[in-house]
Amino acid sequence: MEFPESDMEFLEAHLPPKDGSNPRPDSPFVTLTFATSLDSSLALSPGAPTAISGPQSKAMTHYLRLRHDGILIGVGTAAADDPSLNCRLVGVGGYGGEGLEGQPRPIVIDPAARWNFTEDSKLFRLCREGRGRPPWIVTAVKDPPAEKEAMLQRYGGRYVSVDFTTSDSGQHRLDWGGLLLTLKQSGLNSVMIEGGGRVINTLLEPEYLSQITMVIITIAPTWLGKGGVVVSPERRVNEGGRAIPAARLAGAKWYPFGEDVVLCGRPGQ
Amino acid sequence: MEFPESDMEFLEAHLPPKDGSNPRPDSPFVTLTFATSLDSSLALSPGAPTAISGPQSKAMTHYLRLRHDGILIGVGTAAADDPSLNCRLVGVGGYGGEGLEGQPRPIVIDPAARWNFTEDSKLFRLCREGRGRPPWIVTAVKDPPAEKEAMLQRYGGRYVSVDFTTSDSGQHRLDWGGLLLTLKQSGLNSVMIEGGGRVINTLLEPEYLSQITMVIITIAPTWLGKGGVVVSPERRVNEGGRAIPAARLAGAKWYPFGEDVVLCGRPGQ
Repeated sequence: MEFPESDMEFLEAHLPPKDGSNPRPDSPFVTLTFATSLDSSLALSPGAPTAISGPQSKAMTHYLRLRHDGILIGVGTAAADDPSLNCRLVGVGGYGGEGLEGQPRPIVIDPAARWNFTEDSKLFRLCREGRGRPPWIVTAVKDPPAEKEAMLQRYGGRYVSVDFTTSDSGQHRLDWGGLLLTLKQSGLNSVMIEGGGRVINTLLEPEYLSQITMVIITIAPTWLGKGGVVVSPERRVNEGGRAIPAARLAGAKWYPFGEDVVLCGRPGQ
Repeated sequence: MEFPESDMEFLEAHLPPKDGSNPRPDSPFVTLTFATSLDSSLALSPGAPTAISGPQSKAMTHYLRLRHDGILIGVGTAAADDPSLNCRLVGVGGYGGEGLEGQPRPIVIDPAARWNFTEDSKLFRLCREGRGRPPWIVTAVKDPPAEKEAMLQRYGGRYVSVDFTTSDSGQHRLDWGGLLLTLKQSGLNSVMIEGGGRVINTLLEPEYLSQITMVIITIAPTWLGKGGVVVSPERRVNEGGRAIPAARLAGAKWYPFGEDVVLCGRPGQ
């Protein structure tokens, strides 16, 4: 897979600096990125990876992976999609390049340590083939299953313990600020967040969105139809109880890209 | 309100021919057009007209109204929004121009003739001011209320009787092909369809989408959040019962436009 230099230009202003510098001492440069249909669906249904965007957009995703130290997803996506989370551009480690150069660190948010990975999971197969790094799994569980932890460590991965709060309805709420600090202290200067629906919708809520540095969305000229995995944040209301727009991007730039469009913007008002 | 000539260029290829010619003998040139948020919402809730797109996009809507003979909406929108449906560009009839030149014919789809318009409805106020044409109301009712019909006729409008079928759940299904033929025979060579959610979602279903000539969508870099009036067609399944994408645009072109993007495309595969 290749991503032509001519396509890199428009993206550059929206990417982590190439020299690894980062103005934020307490967090990596955080890019929230995903591809949707016109009706804001990521997929036809959970666990049904759906080809939405065109080949150019897919190559862009791999270029984004090259330009970030870490790539983060939720456990729902890890369990449903068995994703690769590596960079498959010609020239990176495992694809013609040295060692694991250019390969991002996979990070899976798994509050209850429920992800049932095995030696056959794509992530670990890629590790064995020297085509991807071993994952870090972010969990609220203090003592993750010993067997899983042993396997993770054998590959060079690990569980990362981070604070979660549990809501009345039993939903885990991650302390995103704490996690981003931990990732920064672990040497990651940039992290891209790729999905799935639950992680994205949470991060579009105002209290979390402010921790995102850049949002990069690909939109394809297609409608998946009702019942898909939809990106839409919780409704937001003003002091008088009236609904107001949930979130907006500032400095929005649109780049037509093949049949798709790429939208880059900062969290804004 | 003005729409600069420089902005007209990109649109021209997607508009009804200026000379009024139309290759389809049985239908006007039909443009389906609307503005959504990134989460495909038209409004925060029904009857809450929501400023989604920027000033340039709004001026574009009025230019589209200038370039179409008719402008069509559903009764839900007519009842909830009390819309103007006229063109407010400098130079058209009522805004510096002669008579009603450039003003489109408002068409309201109202199967049960339930729209409770009065002399105070904006459409009729604009008629009195010479700033808009009287509406045609498309209905399944054979004998609409005499009082309403009399008022409509006084303004120069009328009820148009068209076939509807009624589904088991009591929903009216309009014979769109029949309506478009009627509109063409009534002298309309081009019609733009502006909403609301129900009309748009119906027209995105395959059997209706094929009757649309062009789709023009404005997308703003904002999320309205859950609970809005969402554009998303009914789920579509293949012969094996698997969900497949509901619709796609062919020849899609994206035009960055202020902070928004404008997408033009033909119904396709």
